[in-house]
Amino acid sequence: MSVDLDALAQRIAGELARADSAGAGGGAPAATAGPAPRRVTTASQPPGIVASPPGVSYVRSQARIADYIDHTLLKAEATRAEVETLCKEAVEHGFASVCVNPVWVPLCADRVRGSSVKVCTVIGFPLGSNAPETKAFEAALAARQGAGEVDMVANVSAMKSGDWTLVARDVKAVVDAAGGALVKVIVESAALTPVEIIKASAIAREMGANYVKTSTGFHPAGGASAEAVALMRLTVGDALGVKASGGVRDCATALKMINAGATRIGTSSGVTMAQCLGPGPLPLGELLATAEAHTGKCLTCAAPQGGASAY
Amino acid sequence: MSVDLDALAQRIAGELARADSAGAGGGAPAATAGPAPRRVTTASQPPGIVASPPGVSYVRSQARIADYIDHTLLKAEATRAEVETLCKEAVEHGFASVCVNPVWVPLCADRVRGSSVKVCTVIGFPLGSNAPETKAFEAALAARQGAGEVDMVANVSAMKSGDWTLVARDVKAVVDAAGGALVKVIVESAALTPVEIIKASAIAREMGANYVKTSTGFHPAGGASAEAVALMRLTVGDALGVKASGGVRDCATALKMINAGATRIGTSSGVTMAQCLGPGPLPLGELLATAEAHTGKCLTCAAPQGGASAY
Repeated sequence: MSVDLDALAQRIAGELARADSAGAGGGAPAATAGPAPRRVTTASQPPGIVASPPGVSYVRSQARIADYIDHTLLKAEATRAEVETLCKEAVEHGFASVCVNPVWVPLCADRVRGSSVKVCTVIGFPLGSNAPETKAFEAALAARQGAGEVDMVANVSAMKSGDWTLVARDVKAVVDAAGGALVKVIVESAALTPVEIIKASAIAREMGANYVKTSTGFHPAGGASAEAVALMRLTVGDALGVKASGGVRDCATALKMINAGATRIGTSSGVTMAQCLGPGPLPLGELLATAEAHTGKCLTCAAPQGGASAY
Repeated sequence: MSVDLDALAQRIAGELARADSAGAGGGAPAATAGPAPRRVTTASQPPGIVASPPGVSYVRSQARIADYIDHTLLKAEATRAEVETLCKEAVEHGFASVCVNPVWVPLCADRVRGSSVKVCTVIGFPLGSNAPETKAFEAALAARQGAGEVDMVANVSAMKSGDWTLVARDVKAVVDAAGGALVKVIVESAALTPVEIIKASAIAREMGANYVKTSTGFHPAGGASAEAVALMRLTVGDALGVKASGGVRDCATALKMINAGATRIGTSSGVTMAQCLGPGPLPLGELLATAEAHTGKCLTCAAPQGGASAY
């Protein structure tokens, strides 16, 4: 694999400049089309992705909150019983996926069989400092065991050391090994500078990943921010999905992430969010405009905030 | 692989009862010999391990503090420059090993070549919730790349779900794959009950591991405790080493761990500890008796306490 990273950086800089001069309204980025834009569609994604209105990217007019949710349980001490409950809830609410550690993939594949719910697992998680070969092995095994989506952690050390070729090779190894499973690249945005977020997101797009994702939820620097989501969306344009995860525990935060360009939310609060926002299509335009007004009557704000996990 | 876990549990219960009735003095456990005791010796371990005096296990009369130190850097954003400094310091002070994430193994193997310092890496780190096959792959690759020691995270989820057969199979997979590298089994003791610590340590011993280790340093429940070290030492007897890691940042804590039975310390404060306690053999008996008196003049107590890492 060879990638001309200088040329890539130059092209992205050009795209950002064009996006900036074309941007309308209140500062939120307009979606920019990357080269060879591909719309990501999976069985769990509803139809109705509409053209981005000025200032807001990727709003879906007919989406349900459940369509956004990766129902997530990643703590080290998760039990079999907890994982089974997770699957049951995901099927009941029609979430996009259950997101679990690799050892649970076979169990989850069995439990969600026949539903629209995908099994999502994590690769090189949460440090991302494994050898590319190990991440590829883990992704291939997960895909064989029934994972339809793999969330890989990009190599933060390589970014911080300026070794962007290793960052690219690492992503490419997982994309090649994933056997058609959807690949999300976690860029641990809270630990990165804006330029590093842009570079990592652009590399994820170039290497054929399907999503960029803000955070592991395990890094001391923090989880998702609307700013990171907007920057990632700006970088990948319409070509990839953007997943916000890590600290997204209530409806207001989830809506803020969607407003900034997120098309998937990783959270352990999906059930309460679904109860709060309802099972039907969301009046998203209205909700996005009144996210703060919603807070007063929000069920998730009163929900217990689990101690150990950042999800 | 088949293991009669009931018979194993029964035998350990018997050993514990015997150790209890034979125990002398102030409550600290005497070392108990496991079946087929094997003394762990590596190039980095000095001679002079003496018979345990009453109430204290595994004191070495001629050990230097450096002999205990796994010089550790495991944060996701560690840079190449930081890893190179780590290697340089380890060689300079003659530490037991440098402990790094897998992606750094080839670099470290090159940098410590010709010295007594081993390259130690981590497997399935820090959640331990990977498939056994992935851990085995990661361990085999690390060994081929020059790791002389691999610290694997045992499957906490399996313990909490009562699936001790999976816990055993997971450890066995890494021991078989490690190609002669020394295997340490991290049992994440702060997240476990005493009975779970005993079971996990006993399984590590039965499956042929060389060390049990208290903590990853990344779990919200906390790091090493002297109680966990003592319990692990009691369970593995003389047959295995015990490594205390996670939150061991000053001399007093390190000495407390050694007093409880630790034969290796995972820390990022090794340089300051070596400066404080000196390069020569430790007057350990004296230091253990006066660990608190040492605190007043201890360099590590004034050392900066790095924010992100629990090491």
